[in-house]
This record gives sequence, structure tokens and C-alpha cells, in this order.
Amino acid sequence: MKEEQLSKISEQRREAILKSAIIEFSQKPYKEASTDQITKQCSISKGLLFHYFKSKKDLYLVCLEQALMRLMTRKKETKGEAFYEIIFSAMDHKFNQCLVFPEEMRMVNMAAREMSKDVFEEKSKLLMRYILKGKEESAKTMTRAVSTLKLREPQNPKVTAALLVYVNAVMNHYLELYKERPDDFFAKAGEIKKELKAYLDCMLYGIVGEE
Amino acid sequence: MKEEQLSKISEQRREAILKSAIIEFSQKPYKEASTDQITKQCSISKGLLFHYFKSKKDLYLVCLEQALMRLMTRKKETKGEAFYEIIFSAMDHKFNQCLVFPEEMRMVNMAAREMSKDVFEEKSKLLMRYILKGKEESAKTMTRAVSTLKLREPQNPKVTAALLVYVNAVMNHYLELYKERPDDFFAKAGEIKKELKAYLDCMLYGIVGEE
Repeated sequence: MKEEQLSKISEQRREAILKSAIIEFSQKPYKEASTDQITKQCSISKGLLFHYFKSKKDLYLVCLEQALMRLMTRKKETKGEAFYEIIFSAMDHKFNQCLVFPEEMRMVNMAAREMSKDVFEEKSKLLMRYILKGKEESAKTMTRAVSTLKLREPQNPKVTAALLVYVNAVMNHYLELYKERPDDFFAKAGEIKKELKAYLDCMLYGIVGEE
Repeated sequence: MKEEQLSKISEQRREAILKSAIIEFSQKPYKEASTDQITKQCSISKGLLFHYFKSKKDLYLVCLEQALMRLMTRKKETKGEAFYEIIFSAMDHKFNQCLVFPEEMRMVNMAAREMSKDVFEEKSKLLMRYILKGKEESAKTMTRAVSTLKLREPQNPKVTAALLVYVNAVMNHYLELYKERPDDFFAKAGEIKKELKAYLDCMLYGIVGEE
């Protein structure tokens, strides 16, 4: 076999291991996850598994980073020119990632709760790094969305921060409701967006009337 | 000894076990928490521990319920007549509970992440019950706070819901920041309340100006 072919087989094997491992780690806490089960699932010997990954912990952290990358990578700029277009496009993107990568989503949820001291420090650092990255991206999107509004107090630095806190809270409410069935989210997207708009309008236009 | 005295000793012993157990469960995941450590801490024999609690699981669930009760019980109605008085009084109460019951707070945080299948179903149900109770209480407080406002659209059912989502998100931000050091929260309370008011004013008065 040519070297190129060998390297391709090697890459395919590594991917097969990662795929099985993400499924296993998405279903069980770290301590209960089994490398036997992982190698069985992808029909690869245990020797080969430890040829690619030096330990179960190493495999776990590589899987977690891959899952986080897949869920958070954005290939395109958020579309839209108007405030709600920008907000809804960002939300659609988040739900779409849950739809395309459901096991990755579950593994990240499991990792957030993982308490085993074998991986606690490393997984916490990894999660924190991606949480900060996610916050930065959300802040950029929100700054762009806010720039389309005519503000009452354009110099008030709290406006973008307030909207960020609020929009994230409302979105998390829907993510929590639909995370196990993102299909439903897309089926009801029209309805949900109308409701979300009613929530956000409360902040855009205020709830207290003139004296 | 009189029966009354005996019952008092029995009650004291039970309390001593619960106290040590809450500390142990606040520091370790369920599987790693040790009943040996608990009995050692409160100088009570293991036989006596299992006389009061039929199993480690039973002890865990009783501790968790006691911690939740202590953190969530409100002895007095939220004080205050004006919107911000009511909101700040509710917030002060939450932080005060963290200050008075730090181990209980930590045990509940641990329980929220607990994944061991030995206790998963029961602890999840228990947490859910208290989360719902907490949401009901917050909704009552918010309804009272909103009733002090002159609303732009008094018939809009979204207003209270929107404020609840928003105020909880802002409060959770501060709870997260100060949960390990509630003393700091009280030391900086004036500053924090000013900031919180700036956030809430965004929703009360709106951020978009007149055309």
C-alpha cells in the first residue's frame, strides 16, 4: 500500500474510534464508560485504541474538544440586517448544531456535570475555554444587532450587556425545553419566534408607561 | 432517664449525624462520600447511624431535603412597597440563606451535578420539586413587584414572565459570582444594587428611543 493510502486508513480508524467514544461518553459518566464497549462498537482492537490515544483520559479529552468544536464552530457570519433577523439567525444556528450533532451535545451536557477527579480539572478548563469563546461570539453578534437600533441612550454601556443577559436567558429556556428534540423546535419555529419577539419587545420598548 | 430526656438525646444524635453528613456530601460525590467519615466526625457508632437511617441512600436523601428546606424556607413576607424594594429584599434573602447555610448550599450544588445511578432518580425528583416551589415563590414576588408599576400595556401577559426571566438571569449572574463568598456580596451590596437597577431600568423604560 502507498503511504497516502495508509495514512487515509489511519485517519479513518481514528475517526471511527472517536465516533464510538463520543457515543459512549454521551451515555455514561466517565468512570462508568468502558473502552471495551468503545472498541467493540467500532470493531477495532484495544491495542490499536491505545496506539491512537495514550489513555482513556486522553481519549475523553480529545472527544470532548472535538464535540465542543463541532457544536461551536460557525462557518458563516450570522445573516440578517435587522435586529430580529440577526438574533433569529444566531438562534437557528445553535439549534441546527444540536440537530446535526446530537451525541456531541449530550456528551458536553454530561461533561458539564462530570465530577470524577480523574478528569475534573482538565474538563473544567476545556469547558471554560469554550464557554468564554461562546460568550465572545454572542457578544459580537449582539453588538451587531444593537447597532441596528436607534437607542434612547446611545452612550449607556449597559444596553448591550442587558440584552445579552436577557436574550441568553430566553434562549436557554427554549434550548432546555427542546434540547432532546430539536426537530420539534424547527417544526414550531414560527410560533417560538413570535413568542421570543414578544419577550424581547418588552426590553426594546420598555414596560412602564408615561406618567 | 425520663422518656422526654431520651427522646431529646435521640433528636440531638440524629441532628449531629445530619450535620456531619451534609458536610461530607457537600465535599464529595455520592459514591465517594464515606459513612465511616460521617460517623467519625460526629463520634457516633455506625450501628447507631443505621439505626436512625436505613441506608447511605436514605441518609443522602434526608440530608438533601433538609438542605433544600433550609435554603428555601422563607419565614417572613418579602418586605417593601416599591418595585426595587421588593426585588432587593428578595435578593438579600437569597444571599442571606447562602451565608447562614454554606454547607447546605454546597451540597445542593453537588446534588445538581450528581450522576450516580444509585440516587439519580430520587435526587432529581427532589430537586425538581424544590425548583418548582422556588419558581412559584419568585413568580408571586414578581407579581407583587409588577403590581406597583404603571404599565404601558397592563393587559400584556408577557410582562411578568419577561421580568421573571430577566431578573432571575441577572440574579444568577451575581449568585454565581458570589456563591463561594456571600460575605463579599453584602460588603458590596450598595454597588451591586446600583448595577442591578441599571440592568432592570433597561427593561422598565426600554432601550429604543422615539422615532
